[in-house]
Amino acid sequence: MSFNETLKSLIKSKKSHLCIGLDVDKSKLPQSVLSTDEPILTFSQQIIKYTEDITVVYKLNLAFYEALGEKGYRILKDTLSMIPKEILTIADAKRGDIGNSSSKYAEAVFDDLGFDAVTVNPYMGFDSVEPFCANPEKGVFVLVLTSNKGSSDFQQIESANGIPFFLEVARKITEWNGNDNIGMVLGATHPEEIESAVKAAPKLSVLIPGVGNQGGEGSRVKNIFKDNDQSPFIVNSSRGIIYASSGEDYAVKAREVAKELRDELN
Amino acid sequence: MSFNETLKSLIKSKKSHLCIGLDVDKSKLPQSVLSTDEPILTFSQQIIKYTEDITVVYKLNLAFYEALGEKGYRILKDTLSMIPKEILTIADAKRGDIGNSSSKYAEAVFDDLGFDAVTVNPYMGFDSVEPFCANPEKGVFVLVLTSNKGSSDFQQIESANGIPFFLEVARKITEWNGNDNIGMVLGATHPEEIESAVKAAPKLSVLIPGVGNQGGEGSRVKNIFKDNDQSPFIVNSSRGIIYASSGEDYAVKAREVAKELRDELN
Repeated sequence: MSFNETLKSLIKSKKSHLCIGLDVDKSKLPQSVLSTDEPILTFSQQIIKYTEDITVVYKLNLAFYEALGEKGYRILKDTLSMIPKEILTIADAKRGDIGNSSSKYAEAVFDDLGFDAVTVNPYMGFDSVEPFCANPEKGVFVLVLTSNKGSSDFQQIESANGIPFFLEVARKITEWNGNDNIGMVLGATHPEEIESAVKAAPKLSVLIPGVGNQGGEGSRVKNIFKDNDQSPFIVNSSRGIIYASSGEDYAVKAREVAKELRDELN
Repeated sequence: MSFNETLKSLIKSKKSHLCIGLDVDKSKLPQSVLSTDEPILTFSQQIIKYTEDITVVYKLNLAFYEALGEKGYRILKDTLSMIPKEILTIADAKRGDIGNSSSKYAEAVFDDLGFDAVTVNPYMGFDSVEPFCANPEKGVFVLVLTSNKGSSDFQQIESANGIPFFLEVARKITEWNGNDNIGMVLGATHPEEIESAVKAAPKLSVLIPGVGNQGGEGSRVKNIFKDNDQSPFIVNSSRGIIYASSGEDYAVKAREVAKELRDELN
């Protein structure tokens, strides 16, 4: 089954559009967690345990593991092994390079680490994205319009066709979706632009970061997709969920906030 | 001293614009190397030994180390430790994410791995690039116009200002160069466009990949910079140098080809 089909059916069966971002920063962990042998693993394990029944995807940001140096790889692998097989995993890696290098990145993320999907940057064009798309079962979320302030610097510049640059990207990547495994990253902080991108690329799945800490609203996102059953969408929250409480009740609070967001999206 | 100043003075003192890309692929190594305990390290060590007196920069492509899985980190660290201190190192990583994630990538590349410079992708805008630029001594080569075929998909689209998108990027990143440590990646396969980008961003350093295997010509590049003493430029060749011979004379041949390219650029 193609990645986009798998995602669609998982959203349906689990009645959830929730993606939880495991951006675990040691400096933000509660005292009891810090006193364990592997604080990041302890914390991740608890978050997963308290949210696995309500989330369809966990998104792991590779930057956080790379910053740990040598031990980062093992912690990443061990975190992945704690996630139940039926839940999808996204490597939030934002990779992209010339073909032979992108092939190596795809090998690292899919074959070695075993992720189900990856985020990629479109700036270098087709041959930089293609190696990630080779296996229809693996998902490829292409950055289209991101949630951060800097998204106005280039993504929203107008092209000579009279449309913003991010729509040029949305249109083009639709042509690359022969394996039905491409998705778009569209920041929740731009609800109107999400609508125009989904119109330009109606058959792609959609990953929406930026709710919670970054200011996007779940209810607004839900409305965009209310009459749309061909674009499977997932909404990611990272810090808003995993750091919902800085105290010892962090896992319970994470579940509460995650459940609220899930319900808001249904 | 700022990174761009350091690069400029190193080019001058060493009389070389050469950057060698260590994209070491195990499937391309000679038999004698494959029979050693650590083929990639053996090969890299020989290439470094035979070229360190003529190159100003080694560029290491992180994709190749990540594809090795757990042992990739150690091989990368050990390779870095073999490079003499006075030679600059670039992490060819093409990273870029929202601010707090880019900070983590900068930590990984500069603080943990100890690289002197990194390649970054501009698509997400200022706040995704800024964390890499915080330390003036560390260089940040921003992708402007890459050497691959896919560079025509987005980088060369015309903007509403009547210029190609990559020139929008070149203009904008000049404004970010307060620490004199930003450079541009400009593919050797586009000589005319290199000229226009350097005109748009005259004070940035320039990293030019794509000579050799990818088809760019060193002599053409040299001419672009012949009356320009404010843009320090380096030209990278990876496969063209390190796989100049597939036989046991690989290191000798690599030196020969590297020397030819160095001389062509002077």
